[in-house]
Amino acid sequence: MRDFPRLCEAIAPPSPAHRAAAQRRLDSLTKPPGSLGRLEEIAVRLAEIGRGTPTPVNQPVIFTFAGDHGVAEEGVSAYPQAVTGQMVRNFLAGGAAVNVLARQAGARVIVADFGVATAMVGGDGLVTRRLGDGTRNLARGAAMTRAQAIAAVEAGAALAEAEIQAGADLVGTGEMGIGNTTSASAVTAAITGAAPDVVTGPGTGVDAATRCRKVLVVQRALDTNRPDPNDGLDVLAKLGGFEIGGLVGVVLSGAAHGVPVVLDGFVATAAGLIAATLVPACLHFLLASHRSAEPGHRVALAHLGLEPYLDLGMRLGEGTGVALFIHLARAAARIYTDMATFDSAGITRHA
Amino acid sequence: MRDFPRLCEAIAPPSPAHRAAAQRRLDSLTKPPGSLGRLEEIAVRLAEIGRGTPTPVNQPVIFTFAGDHGVAEEGVSAYPQAVTGQMVRNFLAGGAAVNVLARQAGARVIVADFGVATAMVGGDGLVTRRLGDGTRNLARGAAMTRAQAIAAVEAGAALAEAEIQAGADLVGTGEMGIGNTTSASAVTAAITGAAPDVVTGPGTGVDAATRCRKVLVVQRALDTNRPDPNDGLDVLAKLGGFEIGGLVGVVLSGAAHGVPVVLDGFVATAAGLIAATLVPACLHFLLASHRSAEPGHRVALAHLGLEPYLDLGMRLGEGTGVALFIHLARAAARIYTDMATFDSAGITRHA
Repeated sequence: MRDFPRLCEAIAPPSPAHRAAAQRRLDSLTKPPGSLGRLEEIAVRLAEIGRGTPTPVNQPVIFTFAGDHGVAEEGVSAYPQAVTGQMVRNFLAGGAAVNVLARQAGARVIVADFGVATAMVGGDGLVTRRLGDGTRNLARGAAMTRAQAIAAVEAGAALAEAEIQAGADLVGTGEMGIGNTTSASAVTAAITGAAPDVVTGPGTGVDAATRCRKVLVVQRALDTNRPDPNDGLDVLAKLGGFEIGGLVGVVLSGAAHGVPVVLDGFVATAAGLIAATLVPACLHFLLASHRSAEPGHRVALAHLGLEPYLDLGMRLGEGTGVALFIHLARAAARIYTDMATFDSAGITRHA
Repeated sequence: MRDFPRLCEAIAPPSPAHRAAAQRRLDSLTKPPGSLGRLEEIAVRLAEIGRGTPTPVNQPVIFTFAGDHGVAEEGVSAYPQAVTGQMVRNFLAGGAAVNVLARQAGARVIVADFGVATAMVGGDGLVTRRLGDGTRNLARGAAMTRAQAIAAVEAGAALAEAEIQAGADLVGTGEMGIGNTTSASAVTAAITGAAPDVVTGPGTGVDAATRCRKVLVVQRALDTNRPDPNDGLDVLAKLGGFEIGGLVGVVLSGAAHGVPVVLDGFVATAAGLIAATLVPACLHFLLASHRSAEPGHRVALAHLGLEPYLDLGMRLGEGTGVALFIHLARAAARIYTDMATFDSAGITRHA
């Protein structure tokens, strides 16, 4: 299931019978019905995806894919392009936020170079899946070819499939790439139809004037490329990034294998938008970890019909929201499997 | 510091210098400033409380205190009074939600009987600090005497102090007691001045008619008792519960010992309101774990100036929100101590 058409064909929605059975199980546990709120919703989602049994979240894997963006030359970021590669080295050394949070959550982080501008020296666990020395400037034409887009998706899917076959029971999406919130804004505008001004935010923290420049760059990207909103590959090729393409592959592979896929923030959710455009059934396998401070994230999540579980004003990416959410997913799974029932504990059900 | 006056005198606000130093540390880490949002706020709070070093959250303890309420005879709960004792047995057997979530979070749960209507058979780790066979009906007079209120606070403080001296580095408040959301509503109305209808919710899940009866009971409790909103002990004695008094002691003891105190939901926050009325400086040590679905919780948190970190629609109590928040507290502490800095990782700071 690593080639693109077969990957898409392999995705089928889970049976709705599992939802009802999961709700009955939750209502038998020693608590007032519904009193664990959205933790119960997570448990039901995980049980549905797990065909009746929620994943224990014993082997979560976060895919932190890195790529550079030609659009960085428009001056849309608070940091120079060199930071992408520098941060990849930080990921490999274990010093970035996602490393710290993933260690706490018992999650593995797969760091892959999908096309950092300056080729990275390998070793130290770096996975190399380079599609080029960064994308072309999406404000002046397509960011990549359709062939590159497919190759990025297939490369990401293959990495996810290998981890799932090795036992990964939850996959999460993370990313790093100077300029990639501009790409995510363009993707979100193209697929949801929202105006560039609504889906373009400060990213790493640009000032108001630079944000306005970003808005104009996104508008120019849409005018120049005229992406087909119903063709996810067209949107990815014209407006995306190599790392975003890789994450589309992670989403599709997780869905094809029936494993829960947890979205991180704005950029990762842009990959979710593209994946859902390609195969709407993959929505059944998607959970939104947190709501980013980026304004476009709200628009993207609403389009997908996903309500995030954490809202901490984070806007870092990397997979940091996924790492925090893993605790909630594991909590939901344990509530489902480990709590006593009214009958087993001998507790009166009603007044 | 176990007797009430000395406990109150021992609480002093931490130095504000620690806040500024903590913010500088966070801004030196390899992420755009502020990009971890409210996780950074938690880190700053923990560093301030820890006099420059956030607690590692290695030994969190959740105090789940149980007590019965005479007001249960007014028919304000969806469950009979016997459920309080049944749930205490469930806590001791490890089958309740708080047990499952605390195990996942690496937290100990201290289960104490502060006055369950039917005396519990001890053993199995039950701590017995009974102030009576449940409180009297607060709709008809004071729930307890002032001496009982002081004794409950001191008993809770002594339990917390023993755990802190044994290494507890974060204390959380949890509770169980049929009828205790009615008590919490009355306490919240008395201290905040909000109308009973605004702070009275469905609790364990009563229907609309029963909720209206609860509102009238709360109004009657205020009219009958005329508690002094500036005297926390008066509010506790007239409207509280034995387990709420115990939690007031946990809050005061945590603050006196400079340990972060994490509030659970609506009932636990009523204890926080009473504690802050007794000693306003204890607010420096309080964190609100989550926002309960109970409408009065929002009012109580606003009065305390606390913004919770989780909003999952939970309304179970027991300490379940604290258990989930422990992961966030630990994440914040690890971000603070374990991430690389821009200098150590050789990363460019600005474009």
